[in-house]
Amino acid sequence: MRAVSLFGSEVKFQQVVPEPTAGNGEVLVDVLLAGICETDLQLCNGYMRFSGIIGHEFVGVARSGRFMGKRVVGEINCSCQRCDWCHRGASNHCPSRSVIGILNRDGVFADTVAIPERNLHVVPDSVSNDFAVFAEPLAAALQIHRQVDLRKKRVAVLGDGRLGMLCAQSARLITDEVLVVGKHSMKLERFIKLGFSTQLLGELTHQPSFDVVIDCTGSPTGLETACAIVQPLGFVILKTTVAREHSMSLAPLVINEVTVVGSRCGPFAEALSALESNAIDLDGLISHRFAIDQAVEAMQTAASHEALKVVFDLSR
Amino acid sequence: MRAVSLFGSEVKFQQVVPEPTAGNGEVLVDVLLAGICETDLQLCNGYMRFSGIIGHEFVGVARSGRFMGKRVVGEINCSCQRCDWCHRGASNHCPSRSVIGILNRDGVFADTVAIPERNLHVVPDSVSNDFAVFAEPLAAALQIHRQVDLRKKRVAVLGDGRLGMLCAQSARLITDEVLVVGKHSMKLERFIKLGFSTQLLGELTHQPSFDVVIDCTGSPTGLETACAIVQPLGFVILKTTVAREHSMSLAPLVINEVTVVGSRCGPFAEALSALESNAIDLDGLISHRFAIDQAVEAMQTAASHEALKVVFDLSR
Repeated sequence: MRAVSLFGSEVKFQQVVPEPTAGNGEVLVDVLLAGICETDLQLCNGYMRFSGIIGHEFVGVARSGRFMGKRVVGEINCSCQRCDWCHRGASNHCPSRSVIGILNRDGVFADTVAIPERNLHVVPDSVSNDFAVFAEPLAAALQIHRQVDLRKKRVAVLGDGRLGMLCAQSARLITDEVLVVGKHSMKLERFIKLGFSTQLLGELTHQPSFDVVIDCTGSPTGLETACAIVQPLGFVILKTTVAREHSMSLAPLVINEVTVVGSRCGPFAEALSALESNAIDLDGLISHRFAIDQAVEAMQTAASHEALKVVFDLSR
Repeated sequence: MRAVSLFGSEVKFQQVVPEPTAGNGEVLVDVLLAGICETDLQLCNGYMRFSGIIGHEFVGVARSGRFMGKRVVGEINCSCQRCDWCHRGASNHCPSRSVIGILNRDGVFADTVAIPERNLHVVPDSVSNDFAVFAEPLAAALQIHRQVDLRKKRVAVLGDGRLGMLCAQSARLITDEVLVVGKHSMKLERFIKLGFSTQLLGELTHQPSFDVVIDCTGSPTGLETACAIVQPLGFVILKTTVAREHSMSLAPLVINEVTVVGSRCGPFAEALSALESNAIDLDGLISHRFAIDQAVEAMQTAASHEALKVVFDLSR
């Protein structure tokens, strides 16, 4: 089969790699669409020191098991199901977990991937592949609802990219007051069309005006901006893993008794349900489609400012 | 009267400064004992760019008002009592507040200080001056109980100094499992005598083993250490304001969905109650006493590794 692998910091397309074999409890899934995520770009910068087939956002068709022939999406944390973490319902933090395309497990930028069957969710018929491929990052955006009560809160979303779009729309399911802050007028236009208030980062007044700030910048400076605009006793949600370091004083967190919440993966069932009910509008969020043999160009495009979601179309 | 003032980053003793006048709602308090806090040392390093009489931990005698002649301690945030923050019971975050010896208001390293009467609390007769002078930092330590549920939690306290001692004892009011991590064997001895488990920082295994880590280091590297030993879904409490910057990657916070909680001032009534009931043992925590004209030496001593709490005795 074909695959896109990371060797050190070099992304390579490979025309022929061995097809995976399904381990105990696993099924093979033929990938239809796979999305490039900020984390994939971070992996190429040395984050997690991952080597192997990358990619973790996908929609595919199960080749065997109880979902055979059905369209599926999959949770990315593959847990042991035996440890304390798994037993108390926090299997996303299982210390012996592998993570699809991120940690000790090959990913989905390939024709076929082996995934634990328990990780799979069937995609409702009414949800297109173009929307289903967002199930993973949308679930991650919805995770915020489990961590912080957004009701009646003034929320700022930092970042006008693909994750910012998902987090802004998720926040708006709970509260009407959502401001999106970004660097790019063009990208902010998309938010304006969806009815969001927006502001250019350069024009942002550094006044503590928000109860909750969601950092989707993928930049090590995001927390500093968030701390400048969050109210005392407010919350900053960190949604992106950033390998690079950034220097800042933590004194404002203490003085203003701000709570910073790290936020990672979320509930797939809720994400699929939100897509099925058209609560989230992802129309046009895929800006570029590539065949898998265009991997290098695809990754470069995903890293560029003009890109929204870049996907591999495995049918090509 | 005599006072210790900060001019830029220079601490100066002044033999004769004008006595303060009590403003509307304020009373004059004659200071008996005043403690030097990590924040005072940070102020000398440029934190808050404060100029004026420093100091905010004290026990004194009210010279007028309903507490006239009584021993009192005082909350340090002087709020407007008119804004939304004050009305909803969060006056410590009043945006127009002054803070005794820290922000727009002279402090307690002086014979006399003017303080809003509403900020004062009468010290119970059974509580000595040597203990009462800890009311402010003890209240700050007890603030943690209002922010994070410590019941049945494994807690690590980073820092073997004066604030570490207060936070460790406060944590032990709620949970039995408290480890104190410090740099100095001599200081850790004090914790061992009180029955705490202790560990030298250099010998600390960087394994995620704690539900809650309380950073009392006063060091910009404290958060990084805390992140290395806190469990996924755990809490890191930041208790010290650090002016210096430190560079670190925030990725571990996101991956492990850690919550970082800034924590500042706390409930004085609870602190006095804990002291009155002997729930907190502060015996011998004052390591050095100085007359106020020894201000420079006192500040240098407080900054040294061997010092615990350094106080000014205003009766000298």
